[in-house]
Amino acid sequence: MTHETRSTARADAFPGSHKVFVKLEHQGERMEVPKRRIHLSGGEASIDVYDASGPRSFSASEGLPGLRQPWIDARRSGPADTGNRTQMHYARRGITTPEMAFVAEREGVTSEFVRSEIARGRAVLPANTHHPELEPMIIGRNFLVKVNANIGNSVVRSSIDDEVEKLRWATRWGADTVMDLSTGADIHETREVILRNSPVPIGTVPIYQALEKVGGTIEDLSFEVFLETIEEQCEQGVDYFTIHAGVLLRYVPLTRERVTGIVSRGGAILAKWCLAHHEENFLYANFDRLCEVMKRYDVAFSLGDGLRPGCIADANDDAQFAELDTLGELTRRAWEHDVQVMIEGPGHVPMHKIRENVERQMQVCDEAPFYTLGPLTTDIAPGYDHITSAIGAAMIGWYGTAMLCYVTPKEHLGLPNKQDVKDGVIAYKIAAHAADLAKSHPGAQAWDDALSKARFEFRWEDQFNLSLDPQTAREYHDEMLPAEGAKTSHFCSMCGPQFCSMRITEELREYARSAGLSDAEALKEGLAQKGSEFIETGGEIYR
Amino acid sequence: MTHETRSTARADAFPGSHKVFVKLEHQGERMEVPKRRIHLSGGEASIDVYDASGPRSFSASEGLPGLRQPWIDARRSGPADTGNRTQMHYARRGITTPEMAFVAEREGVTSEFVRSEIARGRAVLPANTHHPELEPMIIGRNFLVKVNANIGNSVVRSSIDDEVEKLRWATRWGADTVMDLSTGADIHETREVILRNSPVPIGTVPIYQALEKVGGTIEDLSFEVFLETIEEQCEQGVDYFTIHAGVLLRYVPLTRERVTGIVSRGGAILAKWCLAHHEENFLYANFDRLCEVMKRYDVAFSLGDGLRPGCIADANDDAQFAELDTLGELTRRAWEHDVQVMIEGPGHVPMHKIRENVERQMQVCDEAPFYTLGPLTTDIAPGYDHITSAIGAAMIGWYGTAMLCYVTPKEHLGLPNKQDVKDGVIAYKIAAHAADLAKSHPGAQAWDDALSKARFEFRWEDQFNLSLDPQTAREYHDEMLPAEGAKTSHFCSMCGPQFCSMRITEELREYARSAGLSDAEALKEGLAQKGSEFIETGGEIYR
Repeated sequence: MTHETRSTARADAFPGSHKVFVKLEHQGERMEVPKRRIHLSGGEASIDVYDASGPRSFSASEGLPGLRQPWIDARRSGPADTGNRTQMHYARRGITTPEMAFVAEREGVTSEFVRSEIARGRAVLPANTHHPELEPMIIGRNFLVKVNANIGNSVVRSSIDDEVEKLRWATRWGADTVMDLSTGADIHETREVILRNSPVPIGTVPIYQALEKVGGTIEDLSFEVFLETIEEQCEQGVDYFTIHAGVLLRYVPLTRERVTGIVSRGGAILAKWCLAHHEENFLYANFDRLCEVMKRYDVAFSLGDGLRPGCIADANDDAQFAELDTLGELTRRAWEHDVQVMIEGPGHVPMHKIRENVERQMQVCDEAPFYTLGPLTTDIAPGYDHITSAIGAAMIGWYGTAMLCYVTPKEHLGLPNKQDVKDGVIAYKIAAHAADLAKSHPGAQAWDDALSKARFEFRWEDQFNLSLDPQTAREYHDEMLPAEGAKTSHFCSMCGPQFCSMRITEELREYARSAGLSDAEALKEGLAQKGSEFIETGGEIYR
Repeated sequence: MTHETRSTARADAFPGSHKVFVKLEHQGERMEVPKRRIHLSGGEASIDVYDASGPRSFSASEGLPGLRQPWIDARRSGPADTGNRTQMHYARRGITTPEMAFVAEREGVTSEFVRSEIARGRAVLPANTHHPELEPMIIGRNFLVKVNANIGNSVVRSSIDDEVEKLRWATRWGADTVMDLSTGADIHETREVILRNSPVPIGTVPIYQALEKVGGTIEDLSFEVFLETIEEQCEQGVDYFTIHAGVLLRYVPLTRERVTGIVSRGGAILAKWCLAHHEENFLYANFDRLCEVMKRYDVAFSLGDGLRPGCIADANDDAQFAELDTLGELTRRAWEHDVQVMIEGPGHVPMHKIRENVERQMQVCDEAPFYTLGPLTTDIAPGYDHITSAIGAAMIGWYGTAMLCYVTPKEHLGLPNKQDVKDGVIAYKIAAHAADLAKSHPGAQAWDDALSKARFEFRWEDQFNLSLDPQTAREYHDEMLPAEGAKTSHFCSMCGPQFCSMRITEELREYARSAGLSDAEALKEGLAQKGSEFIETGGEIYR
């Protein structure tokens, strides 16, 4: 395993950063693992951070290079190929794949640890063999907390180009996976272009396309149509499917006293189908057949929470937890096929009911990774639900949720535009990083410390460059102090020079340095002398 | 105690709302307690919410009416006047003041409960006798969680008019108190205009003005200058003072290994003074003399956390907790004078270290109300610190913090403009309400339930009007569906009509209604019948 780097400019969103690549060799396969290196001034060491943005693609029609293709081909043509091609299948047989080695480098852990977590089912590495463009990543509570961004058109508007641009935009700001929730015309073509241009795993909700195939009439859905749909999407390279197999016929009446009923689109579709046919949910009834298809491509399940609460009043109710029990049962069935599984969670939950969600999920689903939407911690702020939900997301991440599905300011009101996507991703990068800190993830705090040290030392450029959104930080600073000199001045417009606490503290320490004393000695010295002597030496005490 | 209402239009920020007044009579004093009534459509009952916005003022020079003047005059001329005029003084002698009655109506509790919490020191009612324009409010963990907004110019810029406009703007969006942190010229005049126009308590940090009085040279500060300053500000009507009396000489060396040293402006000033004079902090040494002045006007202490952590690395360290111990000692000294006290808290704290802050504060300070700045849960997002800190604020509010000092997107970068003030207040109203929900505050959830019910029933106008920021919610919706008809349509642009889960759930329930069945019976019925029969009856099952 050799470490070398080459770098490309990242002047677009992250001035002062370069993309660097760690060169690895894993059992004869070569790979380059990307990181973002933030260069600092004043002799400070640069800092490397996780980078999900992928290679720059020059045109959507060309797509990204297929970095995983050799690894996939080698496995497929090898003697060990049984037709089951999941990372879990390999992991359980003691095989460390190149994907696992790639992920280990990204996360700063050993390949063996990655393998064991996947084998245990406590982490998923979503990587369809038909999506070679993917840069492998992992989702599990013993790794960095991840963020998913939803994109996708609806019948109301938006084009394929819009969606590809949203994909690039979301990954630029740090989305670790992207779900394509398109429901309108061009659903196949949109997905194709997204996959060929995506360095991150792509998830979908196949019931949407299945419903299009039967002309939008829920009662006409059938397992056969669904199966055809997932085979089509498996072939295209989708990495994980949200499948609402836990919405059982007998659970539907449990939603009847709810304030907001069923708020999952997929959940509502399946509930209606179950009642209309008075039959059990065809996804539940045919679950093993889904596994048979998905294991050939290594598509992971994201078992959908079709009965998640849609408001504070409905949180943690019988419908939600009954479905969760079934998701636990299905987790074990999928694992029998070595198919990877994560579990979706709510939604809308007040803070004091969040922990129970994680603890029950871990117990019932045997620690399969939890993947939650927010949760929103109040219902009263439409237009600001990236904030109401970032609160819940940070907390649920701390408690053990592996991936956080973002919520944008447009939630409940309309489709997100580009600015909304960015606002949603950044709010969720904050939540995920706050969770990493609270979990004492090794290395997480180095980023905070580097920024705080830059702040204390008035290295303004470094402070901007270390932030999640350097451009915005710089603009906010420059709004009042636009002069270039203000980027090195020892105050900002918030307090002005006279009242800058950091400047005053710096003066205290400067005294120590100029007197040739250590800080400790200087302060001891200072405390020992008479104050009046200090005053006699000049206006500023510590210099 | 009679309840009548009169209303005024509130069409500016809150269309669909009216301000209503509950008329009270308390021991011969008449008063009108404001609430905001949100009117709903579809036969739904209106909902009343807390309203801190105050009377409309027509010109800054005219100021607001002095609603408390008769109460203040009556007490001052009464036989019981001892020169100690604090609400705590009255409360401990069993006297329920008109201010307490006013607060009780606002909070939906009894006057006796308000009195007992103030007497116990577990709540403060900041209300300087020279600030008759104030609408009384209470800060304590058994009441609604409150939000403070900081305004104030610095030497770098902004005018008196700007600051008054920020005051009005902050209270319009829900700030419960406002701190005037002005430090430039016109400090006296700015404060005067703010007080005469403020319906909410105004807090200040008097050391800033004291420092101006000695020409900005920290070493020249003295207790005499400070005393003169607070007497001036007491006369003007400031309701609470941040006083950094806990920054003791011996604690200063504890900050020397910190990443960001001392980040409180007041804390840094006092630390430098202590070292320069090698004397104990003059605020600590003369604390009883401060109490003597403050009790004559009823100005509350907000005991400042001059040694709060300024970054994740410094959270919960020895310096911070040493100062907290001293704040506990000072709390008991202030209470001996019947002077009201709240305790300021951090700052920057990762999520897993937040609870300890509240538990220690309650224990050490004998449950005096906690008043925290955020805390920010990560340092890596300058430009978004209203979000990094709303996460911490919601959690610390849940754990028992009584008031949350807002942080705007400009934190660390510059002075907030009007939009920043609004963004900060709304992020903190979210945090405070999420905390009220998590504490199961009686009545808090009614607001969420009303909004969620409106959402489920596609009462779009009601959904907008119930939100913290109706205009923004409406604009986001209208961005894609501007037509008037879309305000009554049973879908939005997020999912489109075909995939709207709420619409599908509604269809299920509509069937029940049209069939004359209760929901429960309908679903039972639905489950009992053969699915095929449903399909034969038409395309849509439940209608």
